[in-house]
Amino acid sequence: MKWENIDEQVCSVARALSIVGERWTLLIIRDAFKGTRRFEGFHKNLGVTRHRLTERLNSLVESGVMTKVPYSRNPERFEYRLTRKGLGLYPVLMSLSQWGDQWLADENGPPMTYWHSRCAKECEPQLACNECGEALRPEEVSAKLGTELSHYVAHLKSHGLPIPSDAELPKRAGEYRKTRTR
Amino acid sequence: MKWENIDEQVCSVARALSIVGERWTLLIIRDAFKGTRRFEGFHKNLGVTRHRLTERLNSLVESGVMTKVPYSRNPERFEYRLTRKGLGLYPVLMSLSQWGDQWLADENGPPMTYWHSRCAKECEPQLACNECGEALRPEEVSAKLGTELSHYVAHLKSHGLPIPSDAELPKRAGEYRKTRTR
Repeated sequence: MKWENIDEQVCSVARALSIVGERWTLLIIRDAFKGTRRFEGFHKNLGVTRHRLTERLNSLVESGVMTKVPYSRNPERFEYRLTRKGLGLYPVLMSLSQWGDQWLADENGPPMTYWHSRCAKECEPQLACNECGEALRPEEVSAKLGTELSHYVAHLKSHGLPIPSDAELPKRAGEYRKTRTR
Repeated sequence: MKWENIDEQVCSVARALSIVGERWTLLIIRDAFKGTRRFEGFHKNLGVTRHRLTERLNSLVESGVMTKVPYSRNPERFEYRLTRKGLGLYPVLMSLSQWGDQWLADENGPPMTYWHSRCAKECEPQLACNECGEALRPEEVSAKLGTELSHYVAHLKSHGLPIPSDAELPKRAGEYRKTRTR
């Protein structure tokens, strides 16, 4: 399997990474959350080459994470804004940021701290259960197969075929799907 | 700035991506959370080349995200386990997964669903405030500069230099730090 086909896996992490998993992409989105909108702004803040930046921005527009909006007619110029889909990546960025704060900060402490206007307190964003509100610990969460993976496993069982491990399922189910849709 | 030097930015997102921002790396960690431990397992589940996989696993061990534990003496064989630092990436993976579920699922619905043993309910992991427990919305969170960035801005002010935008600060402060530690 090539990286370019990673979205064929029946897995939401793989599908998400097929859109935001390239070098620079999540940093472009980080800057967009901080208010950067124009090509020159991204270029200056990141130091990525113009060629690579163009490629990444086009790809983000194509996948609906950003939208290209004209801000000048003559000469024609565009800016890039996060769509609702793009704004939905906030938890991904904050989780990376929290992990960096916890494990990679130096003697100067975390680069930024966060303030929650709703409760007026300094806050550490955490992953929590939407039902009980408790912080989620991996050992307290179990995953269940959704419709497609369940059907695939049922298909294997009905043919007396061995059932792959949970970790192997996304790729195998993706391969099976491909043979069916051909 | 080259991608290889991205950890020089005074930014926890950039630092985190310098460790987990390469192609395949977060999928290797995803599989480790699903219980994969051995080289052959990762290779089979992902379909990445052996060369690339070796490189990624070594890099994860080097950065302390995984640890290499012998499971056979003769022949000598190792398995790869997430450290506490690696387990700390759970919110990153879950946030990617939730985003994929919301924006990239097809007519079959999300590939997996989650069950929280603590409250015995099906749950959707969400980013929440650790103080009030409410889901965090980007427009309700404001970022404040930590010690290092504050000092850098104070330094610029005291020399009558222009203050960069929030989005420009991580790279500029990193450059300033480099000149001081040389």
